[in-house]
Amino acid sequence: MSRIITLTTDFGLQDHYVSVMKAVMLDIAPDARFIDVSHEIPPQDVMAGAWVVRNSALLFPPGTVHLVVVDPGVGTDRTPVAIQIEDRLFVGPDNGIFSLIGEDYEYKAVKLENEKFWRKKRSNTFHGRDIFAPVAAHIANGTSLEELGSPLEKIVTYHWAIPISDKDGIQGWIVHIDRFGNLISNIPSSLIEETIGDSRLKIYVGNTILDEIVTTFGAVPDGEPAAYIGSSDKLEIAINKGNARQMLGVEKGAQVSIVVQK
Amino acid sequence: MSRIITLTTDFGLQDHYVSVMKAVMLDIAPDARFIDVSHEIPPQDVMAGAWVVRNSALLFPPGTVHLVVVDPGVGTDRTPVAIQIEDRLFVGPDNGIFSLIGEDYEYKAVKLENEKFWRKKRSNTFHGRDIFAPVAAHIANGTSLEELGSPLEKIVTYHWAIPISDKDGIQGWIVHIDRFGNLISNIPSSLIEETIGDSRLKIYVGNTILDEIVTTFGAVPDGEPAAYIGSSDKLEIAINKGNARQMLGVEKGAQVSIVVQK
Amino acid sequence: MSRIITLTTDFGLQDHYVSVMKAVMLDIAPDARFIDVSHEIPPQDVMAGAWVVRNSALLFPPGTVHLVVVDPGVGTDRTPVAIQIEDRLFVGPDNGIFSLIGEDYEYKAVKLENEKFWRKKRSNTFHGRDIFAPVAAHIANGTSLEELGSPLEKIVTYHWAIPISDKDGIQGWIVHIDRFGNLISNIPSSLIEETIGDSRLKIYVGNTILDEIVTTFGAVPDGEPAAYIGSSDKLEIAINKGNARQMLGVEKGAQVSIVVQK
Repeated sequence: MSRIITLTTDFGLQDHYVSVMKAVMLDIAPDARFIDVSHEIPPQDVMAGAWVVRNSALLFPPGTVHLVVVDPGVGTDRTPVAIQIEDRLFVGPDNGIFSLIGEDYEYKAVKLENEKFWRKKRSNTFHGRDIFAPVAAHIANGTSLEELGSPLEKIVTYHWAIPISDKDGIQGWIVHIDRFGNLISNIPSSLIEETIGDSRLKIYVGNTILDEIVTTFGAVPDGEPAAYIGSSDKLEIAINKGNARQMLGVEKGAQVSIVVQK
Repeated sequence: MSRIITLTTDFGLQDHYVSVMKAVMLDIAPDARFIDVSHEIPPQDVMAGAWVVRNSALLFPPGTVHLVVVDPGVGTDRTPVAIQIEDRLFVGPDNGIFSLIGEDYEYKAVKLENEKFWRKKRSNTFHGRDIFAPVAAHIANGTSLEELGSPLEKIVTYHWAIPISDKDGIQGWIVHIDRFGNLISNIPSSLIEETIGDSRLKIYVGNTILDEIVTTFGAVPDGEPAAYIGSSDKLEIAINKGNARQMLGVEKGAQVSIVVQK
Repeated sequence: MSRIITLTTDFGLQDHYVSVMKAVMLDIAPDARFIDVSHEIPPQDVMAGAWVVRNSALLFPPGTVHLVVVDPGVGTDRTPVAIQIEDRLFVGPDNGIFSLIGEDYEYKAVKLENEKFWRKKRSNTFHGRDIFAPVAAHIANGTSLEELGSPLEKIVTYHWAIPISDKDGIQGWIVHIDRFGNLISNIPSSLIEETIGDSRLKIYVGNTILDEIVTTFGAVPDGEPAAYIGSSDKLEIAINKGNARQMLGVEKGAQVSIVVQK
């Protein structure tokens, strides 16, 4: 079975950049199978990329190689890395893009140093093509992390996405808004169970107050807001058959408070 | 030869949702081959999805599995289904998304009931990942419709897209506008032949009146509107080297009248 | 090893057009492997498509078939062609889309005339489905150019993208702006070396004056403009962590002058 290589970038789909990375990889690993995760990460938005990686990478079969290139510091001294987490391999810049998955799982990392696995002719602005894609293809061919460079003890992580809680409730943030305008918070269902249990609650987000967590947005009338546990196991707020971002005027980074009612 | 699974959704390409469905399917059917039909169906626009399915699905080889997820009612009581039409298999919510193809072809349908073919851990908001994708992958592996659930005699269909005609002419609607701004009506070429034959005609759409059907938009001068039979065998209106939606100010749902000239 | 077929179109990703071409090709070449280069070429922008083809096609493995359909003249008398350049095959309309690659490399071309390799039922508006896709699939199956039609001595080329130079400097143009707003000129690094060498220089673009070529945009402070040799080996102008198109107000076609300082 040929190895799967996924691609996550902020390159968009208009230019030739993504296909050039695939061309370079096919040269090295002719039977690689590509899965595009996203090329529409907002330009240079490392944390948006980190969110997508965190929510998809470990669902792929063991052995999958994840090529991740959101790289505003290309050509400067940020470190190119390869990482192994639960038999999945990751290649990209060590700029926080592996932050969220690196906080939640044990990892082994190496600095990419061995130029033998890079493209001979290299630019200063397209390490996706010149370093990361060839390394991903070599890993797909069976090259071990050890051959790529020396160990890196700690990758760059940001303490993003950690909500605050006490006996009165939970304070979190909207960390992602999807295409449907659904507001996805950083508050996991487990924290709600621990902190709130079966108590009555109020949820504050923007100018909206909700007083229960329902099973799904479809459980409230059309046009009404709903709080529910979403598919990433986090608290989400949506409007049934509407766009919560637009209708509630809430953007990424907005506060979400859950307050226990006594 | 490994089975082809196509994907049609309104998930967009920014988030991880599409790739997560592919990851789930690769786990079940490791050598499945994916073809993305569209992930840019306008959010929750079931009939736009139905149009894309109708115009592409049966051109794929027999045995192809079409996974179709435009699902505003996820988590409510709409029925998840699998359908067979001319040796192609379809999986998705029974909410009208299979309306147009189901009106034109004989089908066999089952309700998805056998949870053995679903994901163990399920959410209320992402049945694409938890029910439809695993079922599609199992079908690709050879699971029969009968194993998935009990027969469903009639799928949901909408009587959309049926033009009205009499001896004086035809009354139809713009049912789709493509990326080029071309206005695609629901009037098939066969109905024009029957109703109008070789008579002179006038076509009214928005504020524009056309008095002939030409072979292609390239047959009129640049910037001029043209009526012609498009690649879906329906009457279309376009502007040669221009955008008819913008230049004629016509939106989806607009009337198109063909009037016989006596 | 099954043949790779790449696709470059202006069809966008919302409609069924791209998937229909793939369906038609799978019918003829069931194990073809598709790579999408871009479907977001601006509608009918032949030269934007030519740029993408020029910058990606020859990086793919020998034997790759490149299907390229940006075809504003579909259904009129522009010639459908197949072209061979360095063991890569190209299929599409002869309307300038192969201009840039055809100027830089030796090619062999034929007019597509043999209807045996076309779709039986053909429209006047979708030769991508009816002529180009089936021909691409037949080439992937081993059909030679000679079988497709008679030789074409010269394909359509535009003398676009050739900068002017003398001992005082170089006059070029912005020929492409990518998703990041980076301004890509038609001035190759080799011409700068020949004309400017180690002399001091000034670069004029829009209202901005730069006085050096740096290694990468990351080498200047955040928010500052930088001139550097990009990944296509051409002079580019970018803003570090910013969007040069927006911040400098420069559009495609703008002049770029490099003036030697004496």
